[in-house]
Amino acid sequence: MTAPDLTDGGAFLAATGFVPAEMTGTRVTGAVELGPDHHTPWGVVHGGVYATVIESAASIGASVAVADRGQFAVGVNNQTDFLRPMTSGRLDVLAEPVQQGRTLQLWLVTLTRADDGKVVARGQVRLQNVPLPG
Amino acid sequence: MTAPDLTDGGAFLAATGFVPAEMTGTRVTGAVELGPDHHTPWGVVHGGVYATVIESAASIGASVAVADRGQFAVGVNNQTDFLRPMTSGRLDVLAEPVQQGRTLQLWLVTLTRADDGKVVARGQVRLQNVPLPG
Amino acid sequence: MTAPDLTDGGAFLAATGFVPAEMTGTRVTGAVELGPDHHTPWGVVHGGVYATVIESAASIGASVAVADRGQFAVGVNNQTDFLRPMTSGRLDVLAEPVQQGRTLQLWLVTLTRADDGKVVARGQVRLQNVPLPG
Amino acid sequence: MTAPDLTDGGAFLAATGFVPAEMTGTRVTGAVELGPDHHTPWGVVHGGVYATVIESAASIGASVAVADRGQFAVGVNNQTDFLRPMTSGRLDVLAEPVQQGRTLQLWLVTLTRADDGKVVARGQVRLQNVPLPG
Repeated sequence: MTAPDLTDGGAFLAATGFVPAEMTGTRVTGAVELGPDHHTPWGVVHGGVYATVIESAASIGASVAVADRGQFAVGVNNQTDFLRPMTSGRLDVLAEPVQQGRTLQLWLVTLTRADDGKVVARGQVRLQNVPLPG
Repeated sequence: MTAPDLTDGGAFLAATGFVPAEMTGTRVTGAVELGPDHHTPWGVVHGGVYATVIESAASIGASVAVADRGQFAVGVNNQTDFLRPMTSGRLDVLAEPVQQGRTLQLWLVTLTRADDGKVVARGQVRLQNVPLPG
Repeated sequence: MTAPDLTDGGAFLAATGFVPAEMTGTRVTGAVELGPDHHTPWGVVHGGVYATVIESAASIGASVAVADRGQFAVGVNNQTDFLRPMTSGRLDVLAEPVQQGRTLQLWLVTLTRADDGKVVARGQVRLQNVPLPG
Repeated sequence: MTAPDLTDGGAFLAATGFVPAEMTGTRVTGAVELGPDHHTPWGVVHGGVYATVIESAASIGASVAVADRGQFAVGVNNQTDFLRPMTSGRLDVLAEPVQQGRTLQLWLVTLTRADDGKVVARGQVRLQNVPLPG
């Protein structure tokens, strides 16, 4: 199997609204326009939005990094810290590798509020390099 | 403000498909019917689905636990481990507190594949008790 | 190389005072007698003591589990939560696997205050199975 | 009570060999000279050494940051990633805050091998600000 279109997932992924821009094996960027669709019952952006965007950005970068070897990267652990509540506005996404080994990778993803440059959430994803199916 | 309907969030939360059953301050249960809507571009359930359901279940339980004090609980950290890939089927959700302090709570959430009882993902959420808005 | 004596490390490890009892590939137990030697400058047991004991117990169990294959297990990530401060007394250690795959393992370690059975700290260690040196 | 000497703990802490240099509320640096005293039974530096140094550096900085308020900071969670094995040599320590709130702080600590500048381990510590005893 060749690698799939990295932005083409199901309805849940689409509901995050994450729009990747740069997608390389050492850097993934993009943005999310946040609003009421992303809210918890308490009226702020759901922590799962941040965790999901972090997981996506790290998975894209880590998978691009090993595509030449016929591999992709699957998340083993996602560890997300929520630093500031947010209700709406643009969120800038930046994912970079901390470690890229033969078997494992570790990516750090920072989510920044576009209007003031403050970090809203940050997470790290541990991934395992595995063969592409098929 | 009184506590909101704990299952009433935005479109993103609805896209998880998490249906809570029991919702108390020491135990939250529920289920998710997983399928292609939850998939990554690689055709398995997105790790963000698990992280989001874990965040939701822990937040509900922790918020119920402190509602009497005019508080709710906001996630500070979500730490999710992905143990087995899954493509479809029912996922059973069980959230229980590890610690319930005056300021902080720690909840453990286990996601189990209904058809064979195997744990698919597990996570823990650290939450801070804060005053209900308004 | 054959597997080393699993309790024979350097002075730092000895300073933890961790005394393993049962050491199998699916369960490690033991105890630590805590006191002033384990204190921070603020007079309570240093969080590093808990993290180190958790790392040791998980590493022993995970390494025993794969010794037959000529492997041992190296820690990739240690995630420890500190639930209650403690100044002295016996701490009971229990380590059990959450996942034991071909490449990776995940162990959960619970540290319980012997005098009242309360959990003082808990941690999980992600380990990678690698060939024994030599 | 006034704040204690931040480098004056028990025998366990001394066994890490961590020597702080700069100690402010927004930055802690220092070094550790690693060798056989820090080894696991498998002959590499014990992961607990890294976790403990990370815990110490973060606790010092976070406590200095709130000392003016009559508080110090206690670790709630320590999350350490082990990136490269090391057997001996100098380790440089750098701790910096990610978040410093009224109740909680989050510090990131990076441990770098002095001879080639590579990151050996990194961790983050979540801490709670609490009143100084007495």
